[in-house]
Amino acid sequence: MKLAIVGATGAVGHELLRVLEQSSLKFSELQLYASPRSAGSTLSFKGQDLVVQVMPEGAIPADVILASAGGSISKEKAPLWVKGGSLVIDNSSAFRYDDTVPLVVPEINGEAALKHQGIIANPNCTTAIAAVAVYPIHREYGVKRMIVSTYQATSGAGAKGMQELEDQTRRVLDGEQATNEVFAHPIPFNLIPHIDSFQDNGYTKEEMKVVWETHKIFGDDSFPVSCTAVRIPTMRAHSESITLELERPADPEAVRELLRRSPGVKVVDDPAQKLYPMPLTSSGQYDVEVGRIRSSLVFDGGLELFVSGDQLLKGAALNAVQIAEYLQEQGALNEKAGV
Amino acid sequence: MKLAIVGATGAVGHELLRVLEQSSLKFSELQLYASPRSAGSTLSFKGQDLVVQVMPEGAIPADVILASAGGSISKEKAPLWVKGGSLVIDNSSAFRYDDTVPLVVPEINGEAALKHQGIIANPNCTTAIAAVAVYPIHREYGVKRMIVSTYQATSGAGAKGMQELEDQTRRVLDGEQATNEVFAHPIPFNLIPHIDSFQDNGYTKEEMKVVWETHKIFGDDSFPVSCTAVRIPTMRAHSESITLELERPADPEAVRELLRRSPGVKVVDDPAQKLYPMPLTSSGQYDVEVGRIRSSLVFDGGLELFVSGDQLLKGAALNAVQIAEYLQEQGALNEKAGV
Repeated sequence: MKLAIVGATGAVGHELLRVLEQSSLKFSELQLYASPRSAGSTLSFKGQDLVVQVMPEGAIPADVILASAGGSISKEKAPLWVKGGSLVIDNSSAFRYDDTVPLVVPEINGEAALKHQGIIANPNCTTAIAAVAVYPIHREYGVKRMIVSTYQATSGAGAKGMQELEDQTRRVLDGEQATNEVFAHPIPFNLIPHIDSFQDNGYTKEEMKVVWETHKIFGDDSFPVSCTAVRIPTMRAHSESITLELERPADPEAVRELLRRSPGVKVVDDPAQKLYPMPLTSSGQYDVEVGRIRSSLVFDGGLELFVSGDQLLKGAALNAVQIAEYLQEQGALNEKAGV
Repeated sequence: MKLAIVGATGAVGHELLRVLEQSSLKFSELQLYASPRSAGSTLSFKGQDLVVQVMPEGAIPADVILASAGGSISKEKAPLWVKGGSLVIDNSSAFRYDDTVPLVVPEINGEAALKHQGIIANPNCTTAIAAVAVYPIHREYGVKRMIVSTYQATSGAGAKGMQELEDQTRRVLDGEQATNEVFAHPIPFNLIPHIDSFQDNGYTKEEMKVVWETHKIFGDDSFPVSCTAVRIPTMRAHSESITLELERPADPEAVRELLRRSPGVKVVDDPAQKLYPMPLTSSGQYDVEVGRIRSSLVFDGGLELFVSGDQLLKGAALNAVQIAEYLQEQGALNEKAGV
C-alpha cells in the first residue's frame, strides 16, 4: 500500500508523520507533497530523511492520500486523485457536507467509511474533540440539546498561528504593540470570538460546523446544537464547555464509568486532586480529556462537562490515520495494480 | 464626607483611586489603609501623594469605607467598622449571601442599597459583568434558563495573578518550565477550569456565585442558572459566553436596540467590521461590551451572546464607587457628626 501526504510541511502534516511512526498502518511507501516553496526540503520519518516533492498537476501514484493542504486545493485536486485511483482522506471542509462523502470519527461511525466513493472527510477539529466525549453519552442517555462554548488554540490556524502567538507575545512583553496577520485581531493576552467567516444567521462557519458535523457523524439530527467558538492564546489543544439536556437522566458517576470504557477519551475528573482537562496535559496526547462532569443546574438529569483535546491529533492528523487503520483492519484498503 | 479605602495597594485598590479621580462623588478626605507591609508607601490621587496607613485595630474614622482586602479581613473587621458608624461597601464575598446585606449593581437594583444596615456587598466580578447585559433582557423577555461559560482574566487573582502570568510567560518563551504559586497550575498558554474551591455538587464556588448572586441581584430566583468558570491567560477583562432561554421570543436586532438604551453596557456587535467584545477593547473601559447577539439554535426565541468587561472596573472598583455615588445622589450618605 502506497501512502501519500499532501501538505506534508504544515502543522498537521508534521503530526501525520509522527502519528504514522506510531501507527499499526502497514504501507510500502510514503510520499510527501507540498507547495513548490517547500519542495526539495526533507522531513524525518523513522530516522530516514524523506524528500518533499512538488504536488503533480493530476493524479498521485498512491493508494491512499492524506490531504491536509487546505480546502481550495482539496476541492480542485481530490476529484483528479480519485480519478487516478486513489482513496483521499481529506482534512479540509471541502467535502464534509457532501451527502456522498462519509464524515468519519472511527470511534463513532467507522463503518460509514466503508461506503466511500473515493473521498472520506475528516471532521472539523472542534467537532471531533466534542464528539468522542458526547457520543457515548448520546447512545446511553439520548442528547436532547447540546450547548458548546469553545476555547480554541492558535494551532487551529496552523503553524503560522502558533508562531504569531509566540512572536506577538514576545513583542507585548517587550513593551511593544502587538500586530496581527493570521488572526483578525492581536491574540496575545486576548481572545477573539470569531473563527472562520460569519454566516447570515450571526454564527460563524466554525460554529455551524459543530452543528452540521455533529449531526452527520452521529447520524442523528434530531437534537439541536449551538456553539460559540472563541480563539484564546493557547498553543495546540482545544477545550470546550458542554451543557447537555438528555432524554434519560444521567448520574455523573455512571457517566464517568461509561466514559472510562469508551475509546478515544480519558476521564480526568478528580477536582480534589486538581485534575481536570487542560491544554497543558492534553497537548500531545491521543485521547481527549473529559472532566468536570456534573449534574446540570439548568436541565433536570442533564450534564455539564469540560473537554480538552489536541486539535492537531484527534482534531486532525490522528483521526485521519485512524480512518486509514480502520479501513485496513476491515480489509477495505485494496492496493491498486500498477501504481 | 470622609472616605476610606481598605486594601489600597492591591489591584482593585489601585483602580478605586483611578475611578474616584473621575467620579462625581463628593468627599472631603480620602484615607488609604493597607497591611503593615505596605504602610508608609504613598499613592497618587489627583496629583497628590497620599500616605498609606496601617489599618487600625477597631473603628476607622470615615463615613464610607470601600473594603477590598479580602474576605477574611472583611468578615472580621466590617462589623467593628459599622459599630464605629461607618458604611462599608465590601468587595469580598464575606457578606453577599447574608439576607440583611444588600448585593448591589446600581444599574439593576440601586434602590436595594438604601436598605442597608451598615454593609453593602459588591458582587462577584463575573456576575456583575453578565448581570448588566442580561438584566435588561430579563426585564423585557423574561429569562427562563441561563447558561454561562466564562473566560476569566488573571486579574481575578489580583495584581499577583497578572504578575504570575507575565513572569511565567517570559519563562516559557525562554524555553524554561513554567511554575505556579497563585494559580493551581501553570497559566501561560494554558487554561484552568477551576476558580475558587470545589463544592459538593461538583461546581466551583466561583460558578455557584454566578448562580446565587444573579438571583439575588435580579431579586428573582425563578430561573435556573448554570456556569462553567475558566481561567485563561489574559490580563484584566473577563469574557462570558451566555445562552438564554426566554419566556417571550426575542429578535436580535430589537435586543441590540434595547441594550443600546441600557446603562453600563456598550453594544459592540458588527461582525462584518470584526467588531465584537474582546479583552483587548474592554480592558480599561467602564462599560461592559456585549455582542455576538444572535438567535439561539437550541431555544426557540432564545438568545446567544458574548460579553467582555473589565473585572477590576465594573467587576469591582467601578461598581463599588457607583454604589457610593448612587447613595449620595439619593441623599442617603449622611456625614456623621464628630468623625
